Amino acid sequence: MTRVAVLGAKGRMGSESVRAITAADGLEVVAEIDQGDPLDLITSSGAEVALDFTQPGVALDNVTWCVEHGVHVVVGTSGFDDDRIEAVRALLGDEPATGVLIVPNFSIGAILMMRFAETAAPFFESIEVIEMHHPDKIDAPSGTAVRTAELMAAARETAGSAPLPDATTTDPDGARGAKVGGIPVHAVRARGFVASQEVLFGGAGEGFAIRHDSHDRSSFMPGVVAAVSGVASRPGVTVGLDAVLGL
Amino acid sequence: MTRVAVLGAKGRMGSESVRAITAADGLEVVAEIDQGDPLDLITSSGAEVALDFTQPGVALDNVTWCVEHGVHVVVGTSGFDDDRIEAVRALLGDEPATGVLIVPNFSIGAILMMRFAETAAPFFESIEVIEMHHPDKIDAPSGTAVRTAELMAAARETAGSAPLPDATTTDPDGARGAKVGGIPVHAVRARGFVASQEVLFGGAGEGFAIRHDSHDRSSFMPGVVAAVSGVASRPGVTVGLDAVLGL
Amino acid sequence: MTRVAVLGAKGRMGSESVRAITAADGLEVVAEIDQGDPLDLITSSGAEVALDFTQPGVALDNVTWCVEHGVHVVVGTSGFDDDRIEAVRALLGDEPATGVLIVPNFSIGAILMMRFAETAAPFFESIEVIEMHHPDKIDAPSGTAVRTAELMAAARETAGSAPLPDATTTDPDGARGAKVGGIPVHAVRARGFVASQEVLFGGAGEGFAIRHDSHDRSSFMPGVVAAVSGVASRPGVTVGLDAVLGL
Amino acid sequence: MTRVAVLGAKGRMGSESVRAITAADGLEVVAEIDQGDPLDLITSSGAEVALDFTQPGVALDNVTWCVEHGVHVVVGTSGFDDDRIEAVRALLGDEPATGVLIVPNFSIGAILMMRFAETAAPFFESIEVIEMHHPDKIDAPSGTAVRTAELMAAARETAGSAPLPDATTTDPDGARGAKVGGIPVHAVRARGFVASQEVLFGGAGEGFAIRHDSHDRSSFMPGVVAAVSGVASRPGVTVGLDAVLGL
Repeated sequence: MTRVAVLGAKGRMGSESVRAITAADGLEVVAEIDQGDPLDLITSSGAEVALDFTQPGVALDNVTWCVEHGVHVVVGTSGFDDDRIEAVRALLGDEPATGVLIVPNFSIGAILMMRFAETAAPFFESIEVIEMHHPDKIDAPSGTAVRTAELMAAARETAGSAPLPDATTTDPDGARGAKVGGIPVHAVRARGFVASQEVLFGGAGEGFAIRHDSHDRSSFMPGVVAAVSGVASRPGVTVGLDAVLGL
Repeated sequence: MTRVAVLGAKGRMGSESVRAITAADGLEVVAEIDQGDPLDLITSSGAEVALDFTQPGVALDNVTWCVEHGVHVVVGTSGFDDDRIEAVRALLGDEPATGVLIVPNFSIGAILMMRFAETAAPFFESIEVIEMHHPDKIDAPSGTAVRTAELMAAARETAGSAPLPDATTTDPDGARGAKVGGIPVHAVRARGFVASQEVLFGGAGEGFAIRHDSHDRSSFMPGVVAAVSGVASRPGVTVGLDAVLGL
Repeated sequence: MTRVAVLGAKGRMGSESVRAITAADGLEVVAEIDQGDPLDLITSSGAEVALDFTQPGVALDNVTWCVEHGVHVVVGTSGFDDDRIEAVRALLGDEPATGVLIVPNFSIGAILMMRFAETAAPFFESIEVIEMHHPDKIDAPSGTAVRTAELMAAARETAGSAPLPDATTTDPDGARGAKVGGIPVHAVRARGFVASQEVLFGGAGEGFAIRHDSHDRSSFMPGVVAAVSGVASRPGVTVGLDAVLGL
Repeated sequence: MTRVAVLGAKGRMGSESVRAITAADGLEVVAEIDQGDPLDLITSSGAEVALDFTQPGVALDNVTWCVEHGVHVVVGTSGFDDDRIEAVRALLGDEPATGVLIVPNFSIGAILMMRFAETAAPFFESIEVIEMHHPDKIDAPSGTAVRTAELMAAARETAGSAPLPDATTTDPDGARGAKVGGIPVHAVRARGFVASQEVLFGGAGEGFAIRHDSHDRSSFMPGVVAAVSGVASRPGVTVGLDAVLGL
């Protein structure tokens, strides 16, 4: 049994994670820590791994405390930027004994979609991305769509792929969407969606598609469990879930 | 057996139509007429119905000749505009004995898609249209997508539907697509597609979609057969296949 | 403001309906009635319409009470069978002043899917139904899939459509699915789905599809609101939401 | 310029391949050989690579001839079974200088679909395969569907994945489809399809899908070109396009 402390345990991701970790084989939650609670509950509870779902302003302090006390950490806090990652790297030094796993995206489905899209990108003549989100989202396109398009554009550049064919000369209202790395990205905003994305590929006489639909937060839990289970065996800083998943 | 003359019989739609009509129950092709052939082949062959796949500049003359000789006509020629339709109406007069059926779109699938989209439009909070065509198409969005969006916008106005929800405030590159009648329309251009369209609807906790994929010209043939079979029983000018289909 | 009493107000559908009716324009909830509460709360609260989400064994008594007191009723209780419907018809007599609307399915999306599928059925050579539900469902195929297939089979029979083409001679493990009215029906059971259905149509060179995805109970609320709003203007027994929706 | 001889050049795959190779960068067709033509046209034309689309009964002789003359071979002939592959292996010996690439499936899209399905299989709770083909196909499910399911079942076994959840107790007509390696496989037979397959994955709150649609034989040409371009750099026997594609 790996003993886990959850920081930000009363938040939406934190509380859902407490339930998921409790239900998972080989893991148990030994401390649920939230605002105002002392960090030494982590050590007093005997936690080997901490999972941080707090705020970017606090998370670096939490990670520092954990590393100094030899507790492995998974950082799920969004907005944990490159400067903070560098600070953790400096803290761990050249011969790290502790693992710090920073996870910008816990959705295994989204990670697989991006990985497969990147692999497939050089093999088809045409590519387009369609992302679909709830209509309360304020920005378009989504970060995942941009990241997916960038990965595919880079893969095509490496492979020496031709530019995508497009004879459009008349498009007065912008129906062809945004271009990211030369790849058209379309954003749908419709009630009933949470976060979905389809990557469409086309060649002469064929079509290929990869699609991911996320309906609620529970879809992140397998990623949380994989991160918490895998962090101890990866000393040093790791960014992204890919390594833990063996991808 | 209804006896049919095909005008423009050597063209792509004409020659495919000759095959389809020949194969259809209750129809036979009695004249295949192309450039340079005299129109009186229509009457000498005993044709009761003429199917015109020529050019807009010629088609009106052909229709006039047919009406004067009591031959029903299906006009499949693209670009047969409102002025020409009015000319035919004037020609037929108040008590027409002959039927002239003008068909801008022979795809029964596309007609059903538009009809269903129009019916469904007031029942969902969100609507978006995604049309997908081959990358050699020069204009975006497609005429069918525009027509579909216009029909849905009109249906929503009649029903007093609320505007589509959309909180987007940041969309620097136009990922949200074109707006037609307030409805977002996205155009995909990818090898492997001929002409496809998906109409997406969304409400709280649900999604609904209508999709049509046309892979080649053979998909128009059931519409051609329905038009040729139905024109004789509809004296006067009829525009669109809907009436013949009983929709 | 139409005044509404909800019976079975503490159940899952009942409580969600209370919220939806309260939020809807022109409707208000004046009584929330559950097990043990006296029915005369309906009249004492001045309710004009009652919405019943109780049990089949109780619902007929509730409807009878409402009709005797001149209160219109929407019956959402599942299992309200033909015998019960006949009993209500007898109760209302030949000149009914009260409306009783029995609704086996509140999903407007599912109703549109069935209606469109029925309309499209005679126009395509091939049809198949794929329904997708959560893996805890014990029966296959779903009632909606069976109903959809029956409606399409009847429409094809009326239209004199040919049997569906199928050259399969080798299918040792039953990959071709169940046949309902001659139409193949496939049932997918996968985590992440609640209740989805796709109806696929095919003709030479084309495909057509209608799809409905229901992610949670909130998708039934527009149907509940339409039923409660429309019942008073339809004296006598009405089965199904179609009439109220103007379909 | 790699000089290529096509055997079975007048057949459907052969003639399409001649066109595709001629159009490809770095490749030229120097001999089009069909029934009755002498094989020494291969050497007299200076071909470095032979592409065989003949018959299983003839193909092994062709391969033998090519290996004896130091010409690399791509075998696209279907039905080139394990016994024949072993014969080629014996022929090439321990230090092969010539490459023989045996390709059961030239569809890069289908290969990617299978590869991605195999990779994704252990990460989701539920999996189902839906394959869609034209209604003239006599067997169900398709070989690709069976192969995909077997690869996924093996990947799950290696990963120690749980059995797929399925509470179905009532399925009188077999709507749940065939089981291959424990994975449900559904076969759709509908006009308008050539060869399509969708692999559906599901987890709590999410769905994931990989789909491939092949509309005509042209979709195999990128695979043919990749095989012909890559065979010379792979001495010995290679089975499948994966290695050449760098997958």
